[in-house]
Amino acid sequence: MLKVGIMGASGYAGEELIRILLVHPEVRLTVVAAKIKKTAICNLYPWLKGRLDLECRDMSAEEISGKCDCIFLALPHKVSMQFAPLFLKKGKRVIDLSADFRLRDLDVYEKWYEVKHTCPGYIEKAVYGLPEFYREKIKKADLIANPGCYPTSIILGSAPLLKKGLADAGSIICDSKSGVSGAGRVPAQAFMFTELQNSFRAYKVNAHRHMPEIDQELSTINGADVRVNFVPHLVPMERGMLSTIYLKLKKAVDTEAALKIYRDFYKGEYFIRVLDGGGYPDTRNVVRSNFCDIGLRVFPERSMAVVMSAIDNLTKGASGQAVQNMNIMYGLEERMGL
Amino acid sequence: MLKVGIMGASGYAGEELIRILLVHPEVRLTVVAAKIKKTAICNLYPWLKGRLDLECRDMSAEEISGKCDCIFLALPHKVSMQFAPLFLKKGKRVIDLSADFRLRDLDVYEKWYEVKHTCPGYIEKAVYGLPEFYREKIKKADLIANPGCYPTSIILGSAPLLKKGLADAGSIICDSKSGVSGAGRVPAQAFMFTELQNSFRAYKVNAHRHMPEIDQELSTINGADVRVNFVPHLVPMERGMLSTIYLKLKKAVDTEAALKIYRDFYKGEYFIRVLDGGGYPDTRNVVRSNFCDIGLRVFPERSMAVVMSAIDNLTKGASGQAVQNMNIMYGLEERMGL
Amino acid sequence: MLKVGIMGASGYAGEELIRILLVHPEVRLTVVAAKIKKTAICNLYPWLKGRLDLECRDMSAEEISGKCDCIFLALPHKVSMQFAPLFLKKGKRVIDLSADFRLRDLDVYEKWYEVKHTCPGYIEKAVYGLPEFYREKIKKADLIANPGCYPTSIILGSAPLLKKGLADAGSIICDSKSGVSGAGRVPAQAFMFTELQNSFRAYKVNAHRHMPEIDQELSTINGADVRVNFVPHLVPMERGMLSTIYLKLKKAVDTEAALKIYRDFYKGEYFIRVLDGGGYPDTRNVVRSNFCDIGLRVFPERSMAVVMSAIDNLTKGASGQAVQNMNIMYGLEERMGL
Amino acid sequence: MLKVGIMGASGYAGEELIRILLVHPEVRLTVVAAKIKKTAICNLYPWLKGRLDLECRDMSAEEISGKCDCIFLALPHKVSMQFAPLFLKKGKRVIDLSADFRLRDLDVYEKWYEVKHTCPGYIEKAVYGLPEFYREKIKKADLIANPGCYPTSIILGSAPLLKKGLADAGSIICDSKSGVSGAGRVPAQAFMFTELQNSFRAYKVNAHRHMPEIDQELSTINGADVRVNFVPHLVPMERGMLSTIYLKLKKAVDTEAALKIYRDFYKGEYFIRVLDGGGYPDTRNVVRSNFCDIGLRVFPERSMAVVMSAIDNLTKGASGQAVQNMNIMYGLEERMGL
Repeated sequence: MLKVGIMGASGYAGEELIRILLVHPEVRLTVVAAKIKKTAICNLYPWLKGRLDLECRDMSAEEISGKCDCIFLALPHKVSMQFAPLFLKKGKRVIDLSADFRLRDLDVYEKWYEVKHTCPGYIEKAVYGLPEFYREKIKKADLIANPGCYPTSIILGSAPLLKKGLADAGSIICDSKSGVSGAGRVPAQAFMFTELQNSFRAYKVNAHRHMPEIDQELSTINGADVRVNFVPHLVPMERGMLSTIYLKLKKAVDTEAALKIYRDFYKGEYFIRVLDGGGYPDTRNVVRSNFCDIGLRVFPERSMAVVMSAIDNLTKGASGQAVQNMNIMYGLEERMGL
Repeated sequence: MLKVGIMGASGYAGEELIRILLVHPEVRLTVVAAKIKKTAICNLYPWLKGRLDLECRDMSAEEISGKCDCIFLALPHKVSMQFAPLFLKKGKRVIDLSADFRLRDLDVYEKWYEVKHTCPGYIEKAVYGLPEFYREKIKKADLIANPGCYPTSIILGSAPLLKKGLADAGSIICDSKSGVSGAGRVPAQAFMFTELQNSFRAYKVNAHRHMPEIDQELSTINGADVRVNFVPHLVPMERGMLSTIYLKLKKAVDTEAALKIYRDFYKGEYFIRVLDGGGYPDTRNVVRSNFCDIGLRVFPERSMAVVMSAIDNLTKGASGQAVQNMNIMYGLEERMGL
Repeated sequence: MLKVGIMGASGYAGEELIRILLVHPEVRLTVVAAKIKKTAICNLYPWLKGRLDLECRDMSAEEISGKCDCIFLALPHKVSMQFAPLFLKKGKRVIDLSADFRLRDLDVYEKWYEVKHTCPGYIEKAVYGLPEFYREKIKKADLIANPGCYPTSIILGSAPLLKKGLADAGSIICDSKSGVSGAGRVPAQAFMFTELQNSFRAYKVNAHRHMPEIDQELSTINGADVRVNFVPHLVPMERGMLSTIYLKLKKAVDTEAALKIYRDFYKGEYFIRVLDGGGYPDTRNVVRSNFCDIGLRVFPERSMAVVMSAIDNLTKGASGQAVQNMNIMYGLEERMGL
Repeated sequence: MLKVGIMGASGYAGEELIRILLVHPEVRLTVVAAKIKKTAICNLYPWLKGRLDLECRDMSAEEISGKCDCIFLALPHKVSMQFAPLFLKKGKRVIDLSADFRLRDLDVYEKWYEVKHTCPGYIEKAVYGLPEFYREKIKKADLIANPGCYPTSIILGSAPLLKKGLADAGSIICDSKSGVSGAGRVPAQAFMFTELQNSFRAYKVNAHRHMPEIDQELSTINGADVRVNFVPHLVPMERGMLSTIYLKLKKAVDTEAALKIYRDFYKGEYFIRVLDGGGYPDTRNVVRSNFCDIGLRVFPERSMAVVMSAIDNLTKGASGQAVQNMNIMYGLEERMGL
């Protein structure tokens, strides 16, 4: 049994990690740490009553290391980079759900996150934890930079056409919509029930911190610079995310041909489901699962492809993917517990 | 034109007052004060852009008095009682939406609200602003204690049977359900969208501060002590409130007879709609209106009446009723602007 | 591996059975039958794409019997009783989620369900599938009458006080609130999103078909006739159910004593969680689980106990409980897959 | 007082017309017709109890004409064109909320709506009822083709940049999101509460019937052919619509310059609110109002403008705009009753 700990158990990604790891057959959850006053974890999450008997409290890296083989950091950026090196130096493996090790260009990180990186040497040691693209590296990694939710949905949705050289890299538009849990668990008026039940709006147009991450990964896939337009929106629902991606085509393909490209590209990928020609990905079908549903339509006469990509922002977009990475790192069946 | 001001414009009751008064044909809204940093009211409530050009800021009673004939206090309890006397001494009329002047028994107030009353002499000057019961007094009042939302729905729902001496005063059960706006606009984790979308629960069983208010008013109507059981619940919707009231009958009546009692009791009351025998009050039908919909079923063989009473907690349960009171106080048509 | 089939796979209880059985380690789901045009089950439920490769179609009892050891009937009442005997005669075991075998008094059944029972002889063979009360009988049963959702929440919530002789059996009030999935999957205007998002209302006051079922079971527990008042309400959320139960006490106990009675009564019952004194059951904590959370407050000076009982109407209130019964019938660990 | 009738009172656009006209100071609502069994309108819409005493039933054009000066057709397309000529021949003025007279090219209409137009001669008599563009023609019109909801939000959001010749007409992307009421009031499983509460998805990618209407109107504004990409999505909320519009810029402007263009373009237009540079239109701020809130961001280095345009799909997107048209046609103050 793998002994596993969570730092940052008091946020939604932490809670989702608990939900998944609790029933994972090869894992024993030994630590749920958070910067809060000591309390039973089931006081924080009453649905855990009778199911998980752990104390949630602030713990040192030292103490956590003594109890775990693998540590999930469900911490805010800036905080993760303080802890990751401590665990790594003790020979532990770390899966970081923050952005601290995702951006390979230090300047880009420091510009977008407005903070000095305290351990830049670890950035190149980190593997970007998108298993469909970096599985082999993940197997051997000690530090996973678990992808952001928006990047996950957008990269998975646009990669096949980009990789094939079919999409114009300079005009990609990503219109994404996320459930409210993406905003985190810290109280704020903007995320009160009363403010959101009848609300739909965009935010951070081309100014969201996930944008450089998308650009970085799509550039790698494309083999040349990609710079997307990225507009996130807030949907009045708890979980789920849909990205609608507009790709200008460089060569004429039709919907069936494009679907074949996607099916071939994701062949053998259990968690990627390419829908049939008439299908529309719906967040409802992926919520609380690690699946990414992809649908598309091509309009050859417009040289336009519209790709829709749906995930659960907390699962494939965060904690589910983190567990998928853990499974790969430890040689377990990739879909175990998911 | 009546010059009207709102203190506490930054809360939901304040916002609802603005919504109503904005289109009231005999009112000019001159003050929207709140303990916040000075800003245009349309920054606080963007739906007001182009519709109301007022500055929202902290203002002294002195300054407000200079601009208003009538002041609505949409303030927390404890705060209202500091301001009401200041306005009254200047000859202004005050409609207080807090609980500070509702409870006639000082001890009861101080016990339930855990605070010393700073102007107890004003309590007896205040008129409980439930127009269907105290219209004549309201006409002449300078200080209105505007009823709480739960009390409004429960008193209107149970009064006719109590007044007729048909209901047992010792065993009344009020099972109430409220939309989330009743919890106010101050951020708290318990009221985040993510925490509530799939949540239904009771709170403050027989411990809610509206209970002594219900008891007081029903006792007056009954002519003898009433002590209800009162269990409020939180419904995942923005607005609306339903109280299901269980009354043990002392004499045999049937549904039709009971409905007739209600129709007679509320004859001429525009805002009280007694539904037909088969009708179920639905919050959907009263939301954003000042109506109270009442439906009932009597089970003579069980000596049980079940009364259902629906209002909008922010309208008939707060700001709409406050404006109804204002209309009465100033000799305007009672339903004007509502 | 137990071979299991579902009749009525196209409704919400059927879908929930699939969700649970899909990951049950000792079950192979071999049949998903429904009275619809033949289609892959993942066309009906797109979340199943890649996860369950079965065809959903109308199938004869004969054919189903050839493929299953145990059959779940997620059928409307009146339909279940046509099929149950066919399976039983072939030596299969049947778990019926309809009401057809729940009511032991034939007249009561025929009055409330307005239909002639076609196989009354099977009623006494059926075991009421509430494991916390009838576990030993369930072990040997071939036909389970799986309880209704409202009865499950109400029986579990009120049994301990009744059994102890502490509650007055003649004045029980059950004010229940259910998520919308309880209304089923057949389209109707009253259950459209647009009609319900801002709606809260009661329905079928003392006229719901679950009432005689509650009376029957509570009478058995009480050892004498019980006749509850039962008022169901519709909550604008997909799943979850809370019953607030008002019990008149015959003897003085306080909250702690009552909690002790509940804890003793449900000792060893994994799925029943009696909350601490300050706890409020919240549907959010039981959704998609088979747990029943119970909280209570006693008011000795009022001789009143208020019990709150939360379940997921589709899980402990239907399909989860059905699987719990299956586990018991086949000697599997009771919580397996749940 | 203008005597006004509604055909199609049983749908959401009809209900919204009633909501607005009920409090319109210069209108008397005399007819609420619908193809249903005769019933009081307050049985159809219980919120109208005590507020509107009209019978809703199937009525002939003859009978309606006798009671009304102006008729709103809130009918399905294909049905409107059967009735409009009957009223016009009797000298009545007609505001048609269907699509039957919106498309000036008969072939386009017949292709997209898959039906033969029965009175093509009326198409050129009809005025497209977007007051901000066609106010002078509307004044004299007898037949208004009231715009669709998506076209309203998209035309208002993109017109200023197009008109100025700043936007590339060949690459416009309209990513629109609508509340559920846009789907109408006829029951269908896809629009049940249980199916939608956690659902977000696109539908009819470049295949929605509003697309040719958008193309037609933007082409007129642009002075040359425009062919947009149009992807509508369904948001789990009752009302409200946001369109996010991506415009490729032909000349360099910055956000402030673009905002100035919008402010100048809509100068004096009460219902169009151009937000400040930092503003994000939110459906919450326009719901139940006739306002259209527009925000934008320009990225000169990308030659990209992102415009966001929010309306209430039932108000500015349907019935509110229809009443605005009526006000203009009859020389009333344009915002009266809105």
